Amino acid sequence: MGATDETSASMHDSLHAPARFNRTCQNLRTMAKDLGVTSREDNYAEWYNDVVKKADLADNSVVRGCMVIKPHGYAVWEHMQQALDRMFKETGHVNAYFPLLIPKSFLSKEAEHVDGFAKECAVVTHHRLMNDPNGKGVVVDPEARLEEELIIRPTSETIIWHSYKNWIQSYRDLPLLINQWANVMRWELRPRLFLRTAEFLWQEGHTAHATYDEAEQETLTILGIYKRFAEEWMCVPVVDGIKSEGEKFAGADHTYTIEAMTQDLRAIQAGTSHHLGQNFAKAFDVTFQSTEGKPEYVYATSWGVSTRLIGTMIMAHSDDKGLVCPPKLAPIQVVIVPIGRGDERAAVLEASDKMAADLRATNWAGAPIRVKIDDREKESPGFKFNHWEMRGVCLRIEIGPRDLAENKCLLANRVADEKQEVSLHQVVNQVVAGLDGFQSTLYNRALELRNANTKRVDTWDEFKAVFANEGGAGFVVAHWDGTQQTEDAISEATKATIRCIPLVALDPKDEEPGVCVYSGKPSNKRVIFARAY
Amino acid sequence: MGATDETSASMHDSLHAPARFNRTCQNLRTMAKDLGVTSREDNYAEWYNDVVKKADLADNSVVRGCMVIKPHGYAVWEHMQQALDRMFKETGHVNAYFPLLIPKSFLSKEAEHVDGFAKECAVVTHHRLMNDPNGKGVVVDPEARLEEELIIRPTSETIIWHSYKNWIQSYRDLPLLINQWANVMRWELRPRLFLRTAEFLWQEGHTAHATYDEAEQETLTILGIYKRFAEEWMCVPVVDGIKSEGEKFAGADHTYTIEAMTQDLRAIQAGTSHHLGQNFAKAFDVTFQSTEGKPEYVYATSWGVSTRLIGTMIMAHSDDKGLVCPPKLAPIQVVIVPIGRGDERAAVLEASDKMAADLRATNWAGAPIRVKIDDREKESPGFKFNHWEMRGVCLRIEIGPRDLAENKCLLANRVADEKQEVSLHQVVNQVVAGLDGFQSTLYNRALELRNANTKRVDTWDEFKAVFANEGGAGFVVAHWDGTQQTEDAISEATKATIRCIPLVALDPKDEEPGVCVYSGKPSNKRVIFARAY
Repeated sequence: MGATDETSASMHDSLHAPARFNRTCQNLRTMAKDLGVTSREDNYAEWYNDVVKKADLADNSVVRGCMVIKPHGYAVWEHMQQALDRMFKETGHVNAYFPLLIPKSFLSKEAEHVDGFAKECAVVTHHRLMNDPNGKGVVVDPEARLEEELIIRPTSETIIWHSYKNWIQSYRDLPLLINQWANVMRWELRPRLFLRTAEFLWQEGHTAHATYDEAEQETLTILGIYKRFAEEWMCVPVVDGIKSEGEKFAGADHTYTIEAMTQDLRAIQAGTSHHLGQNFAKAFDVTFQSTEGKPEYVYATSWGVSTRLIGTMIMAHSDDKGLVCPPKLAPIQVVIVPIGRGDERAAVLEASDKMAADLRATNWAGAPIRVKIDDREKESPGFKFNHWEMRGVCLRIEIGPRDLAENKCLLANRVADEKQEVSLHQVVNQVVAGLDGFQSTLYNRALELRNANTKRVDTWDEFKAVFANEGGAGFVVAHWDGTQQTEDAISEATKATIRCIPLVALDPKDEEPGVCVYSGKPSNKRVIFARAY
Repeated sequence: MGATDETSASMHDSLHAPARFNRTCQNLRTMAKDLGVTSREDNYAEWYNDVVKKADLADNSVVRGCMVIKPHGYAVWEHMQQALDRMFKETGHVNAYFPLLIPKSFLSKEAEHVDGFAKECAVVTHHRLMNDPNGKGVVVDPEARLEEELIIRPTSETIIWHSYKNWIQSYRDLPLLINQWANVMRWELRPRLFLRTAEFLWQEGHTAHATYDEAEQETLTILGIYKRFAEEWMCVPVVDGIKSEGEKFAGADHTYTIEAMTQDLRAIQAGTSHHLGQNFAKAFDVTFQSTEGKPEYVYATSWGVSTRLIGTMIMAHSDDKGLVCPPKLAPIQVVIVPIGRGDERAAVLEASDKMAADLRATNWAGAPIRVKIDDREKESPGFKFNHWEMRGVCLRIEIGPRDLAENKCLLANRVADEKQEVSLHQVVNQVVAGLDGFQSTLYNRALELRNANTKRVDTWDEFKAVFANEGGAGFVVAHWDGTQQTEDAISEATKATIRCIPLVALDPKDEEPGVCVYSGKPSNKRVIFARAY
């Protein structure tokens, strides 16, 4: 509303020339940017923001730190949800839903949890508005103050374990394998679309087990699902490993993570799976009767991935033409652009419809191919090519009257430089091959980037040199003495943190003992350092 | 936590005999109730609550008015979501996601909206907790007060139309057909599981159109989807009609509704579809350039159904044995109970597995049949029968060694009295027929109930007599003079409200003119009155 008021005011007020001049400059900038995105080289952060906005994925909202996920971005999330939900269910999990609001006192029941975690959050203090006695709009009704403040869930361990107390009595009630798809809120001080927003969408699994080992197995099963999803759906290679004490989830016994590399060579944590030990069971007094008839505290896990995955995907693959989307997650996999006007158009449109129908009748990766025909009459083919490249459509089919006469079309690939001539009866096969190839191209490209930017470093001077400049510097695989003190000192000096202790080393030699890159003390294996998002 | 503390205290404190006596009585009552549910005749409200809880659908939470949707209940919601989402997408809608929090000032932008609607809501005033300076837990940080309070969305018209202002410039941007699956919160004073909870899950569609007529068509398209979903998925016949001015959505031009009848003869509003006119476009200044190049305000619709549908489904079909679930929405459609112990058990389990595999390989209503084998060894067959009847499993297959020897099994139906002998090679066919029959039986039963309890009433005395007792009294089809004043007077006298003015009369004669049952003034058609949930 503010912007419009200003604009219409300026239209009627020629006295404010400097303001109008500034606005004109701004409009020109906006117009120029409509043609493309800031290049990654010029400004990576601005490039990222441009891609998110110009690919129509998300927008900032009027509420600080909260985003609007636009239909094109939400469709990516829906594909992510479907794939993950299927994998959770195949491994015996069921979905449920727990309350959005958590009594304030719950947060302090698990001591580490509240210390490390839950301070920056949205607090509900009242439950009613009333008309402003001064006649302007509405105000909070002071009579409607809650007895105890409620917190919008930043994560749901506390409210869920409060329920589990009633659900778990005997070993027969275990394991409890529950997942929730929900929104959560953390009052982020420096929000960035998808990567770090005050409100975000996620899934959070909360499981209960009779033994430590069973909980450990669960934690690793989920980590395996996350890794498989990242690599096979998102085309993002990840290192799966365990977090250091300093980086683990507040309230966990230990935390597993998958870590990806972005094109600006930072690490990005893409999913975590926590073994919570008996911490939450003790905090909420959840015991079960064991097979031997003894009361015992329950073991817990929790695990989650969020809309941050969309940010991860963009950071891994997109380019200076806009979004690049792995085909399995792309809202539109193939766009058909019919070319030609007048009398010739009808036949081209008919051929396009037939192609679209054939493609839609074909399953790729377990679902019908997602096709759009862009038959807008007022836009040029070039405009349409850019439009769909910006929005990350994987393959483009161009077909005009001459192509049709020759019974062929052109097939363009969002990440290849050349167009391919394809005979019409080969279109379906070529599209299927194109989507297969696209998926592996993206993965291989990302793996090459990671390999090229993963270094073994053995001295502190070299370590500091790698991180001498600001920004990402890839993965540094180095020895560490295992202490929090050293981790803190390294992070202080370089802003690099331990991303994880890999479960399977990237190189077998990383498993050999050595000495800590910082303290010179003994280390039995290498860990991965990086600057992170 | 409280309950446990009390119990353990009482165990150590023999002085409080009366308290212990009461507790014992309560425990006995609880045990008795575990065996079944309160009958509908004894106490319909308690019956409803029992079904929700004992069928493992939902539970009250520690946060007043908020519910925990348990896995069995959430699975019903997932099936509802899938069916509705498919219908929305088939009619050109896409999903998106808008922020949970709404600036307080937004609510007062549309005058009717705030007056009629948005007062009882959760208000966020702060964004940080801190350690209690007195050392006990956490307290709200007084420094972290928000400049403007934020409201947890009770519905999203305002925040969405604020976004649409940026998304809509020209007629080419229209129509905008967007739906959102989300949680919303309304501070209900008398919450009831599923029917009226402070937090609930729903979908809310928010569309933007160039013309009044196009918005009207959209409103009716959605109403048609809701009616079809209610009748073909939920097996609940509904009357689709328009709300009177007094009952329409605050901020709407007019509201369409689908109204169902419960077994205690009340009406229940199961879904609404609103034509918002240009009200929200004007409030948020959303205009578009028409084909003639003129700026015009956009026309809007909004529409929603919620987890209340689960309550509606229970109210329509369930019985004194527990949940009755329409097969298309049932988390488990068929349970197989293998009977027999010792040596004979292995063969029975093998036959059960084969049956389950055959059923799962069969599609019914577009999805693989959902089968569970209950092979628990410590529970009796009778226990299992009750267990799955309570939880609304549609069909039960019992198979023991003798059945197996005779190459047959027994097929029981949740809503029929007799068991059917079925030869093993006919099981798949009989299950498919059983599910088909179940679906139509439920619908027909509900339709008969509604027909038997829909009366035409022509005098005020008769009208008052129908509503003389408390509780539901069915649908009363009567003439009304069309004024708010009469509607209010009738509601005051009888607690019956106008549920809707049907789009298609239940009986053609209802379309004939007459005189108002209350005022005697002319009326051109009959409307439906009922007491409502």
